[in-house]
Amino acid sequence: MSHSPGTVPGISGRTRLFAVLGDPVRQVRAPELLNPVFAELGLDAVLVPVQASAAHLGEVVRGLQRAGNVDGLLVTVPHKAAARAFADVRSPAVELAGGTNALRRGADGRWYAENFDGAGFVAGLTAAGHPPAGKRVTLVGAGGAGGAIAAALVLAGVARLDIVDVDQSRVRTLLTRLSAHAQGRVHGGELPPEAPTDLVVNATPLGLRPDDPLPFDPSQLAPGTVVADIIMTPRETRLLRSATAHGLPIHHGEHMLTQQLHLYREFFALHPAEAAISARPGLPDSAGPVPPA
Amino acid sequence: MSHSPGTVPGISGRTRLFAVLGDPVRQVRAPELLNPVFAELGLDAVLVPVQASAAHLGEVVRGLQRAGNVDGLLVTVPHKAAARAFADVRSPAVELAGGTNALRRGADGRWYAENFDGAGFVAGLTAAGHPPAGKRVTLVGAGGAGGAIAAALVLAGVARLDIVDVDQSRVRTLLTRLSAHAQGRVHGGELPPEAPTDLVVNATPLGLRPDDPLPFDPSQLAPGTVVADIIMTPRETRLLRSATAHGLPIHHGEHMLTQQLHLYREFFALHPAEAAISARPGLPDSAGPVPPA
Repeated sequence: MSHSPGTVPGISGRTRLFAVLGDPVRQVRAPELLNPVFAELGLDAVLVPVQASAAHLGEVVRGLQRAGNVDGLLVTVPHKAAARAFADVRSPAVELAGGTNALRRGADGRWYAENFDGAGFVAGLTAAGHPPAGKRVTLVGAGGAGGAIAAALVLAGVARLDIVDVDQSRVRTLLTRLSAHAQGRVHGGELPPEAPTDLVVNATPLGLRPDDPLPFDPSQLAPGTVVADIIMTPRETRLLRSATAHGLPIHHGEHMLTQQLHLYREFFALHPAEAAISARPGLPDSAGPVPPA
Repeated sequence: MSHSPGTVPGISGRTRLFAVLGDPVRQVRAPELLNPVFAELGLDAVLVPVQASAAHLGEVVRGLQRAGNVDGLLVTVPHKAAARAFADVRSPAVELAGGTNALRRGADGRWYAENFDGAGFVAGLTAAGHPPAGKRVTLVGAGGAGGAIAAALVLAGVARLDIVDVDQSRVRTLLTRLSAHAQGRVHGGELPPEAPTDLVVNATPLGLRPDDPLPFDPSQLAPGTVVADIIMTPRETRLLRSATAHGLPIHHGEHMLTQQLHLYREFFALHPAEAAISARPGLPDSAGPVPPA
């Protein structure tokens, strides 16, 4: 990597743009994490935060897509579901998860939507020695992140997926979306799990705050059940500490992030950034040389 | 300045955005010139290039203006005239020049348009010891840059301004726009100037290419007449070399740029970037923690 963390290469008129859309957007970590990746890939590109309210999301996204040097958009809360509408092509993970967190302009000019939340989680499990294929999994939380993880687990070939949420309507919606691909493998679940399970995943926000209740009680799980969290901060959530205290193997939230970086890297590296828009050389028009803009 | 040239401070979710709009946009120098100024001012802000075609200018600008963390837009060819439509408030220089090259979001949420092309030129003249107030000036070129310079010269109080262009309709349009403020001081001119003149300005693109003809012949000017060019590259245009050869004082194009940087600096420093959009703290919604976007 040719640049120290915290800086990005100089931006010139030739620099390609990526934006991360959210509301709020102040908390996003993507610019700090991905700008060094662009530098490492040798891409003259920069990722900037763009605050877009739900009311104005369409105008903001369409405006960015109309800009000739914008090559991709990352999407975070609360826009992941709505952003699907701005893609011409959606991956199976997007269709199944019901949301997208990455759109890029293809060499053909069309916009492709991906969802790396679930794939990042599955890749993290696999890298940590817990590949989910053929396993029985209980997923707690059927919101945006839970939906993405459920979709990725189905695509990864879990034997059975039980989905639990205090909001039964969210469970039903997710089951309906997954059913065509899940071939009877996906069910509404209960806590503690009725059937033996290999892995229980927390995909709720519970654990972000020190005084949050546990999303489920690890002490009621069978020995050997892996307890996974998607919360990254704090690293050792109350859930993971409790699971460890009961002798259960655990899987930290940070793996999902680490693996997503790899996926983003591939997604953006695939894109022929400089080639997408042909150069238009020529002198300025009669308005003359107009410094410095 | 805390950053070396060619780098900008790390971009985070809190970074405020400025964009420079043009078509093409590859040649713009604003990001390289102004990002170090932001750093020097201690602003957590970044200026990025945005390529917008004339057909999509409205969508691109409105999209950027709808983004909560976009604080300003610079505008270059061919959009300076059209961009006026996206401002709520236009400075006298914008109205007179018929174009804007800088828009910013005010603390009141309205968009303010400025035009620094002419003001930069006048400030450059003044800094170089040629203040135009009370002087007789001949301006060659009534395009975008010429219009901006004409407006600034009128506002700076020239005694008389003669405007020359091969396109007589552009001269008439500019005279009409200036007439209300010029009180009989502005006229269509001829080359060589009929009346004695203190300063002759090239505001045409002639001189950008080595084989361009001279925009006018300095050998026909009276001794002591200042010959000014707005072309920056090459620094020593054929016109300036010819004027020097005839013993006339000259004024380089680069002064316009240097002084515009000061004006931009003031324009952006005035803006309470961090205060404009209040922080919206809070936990992510039920979609959970969603790294890294």
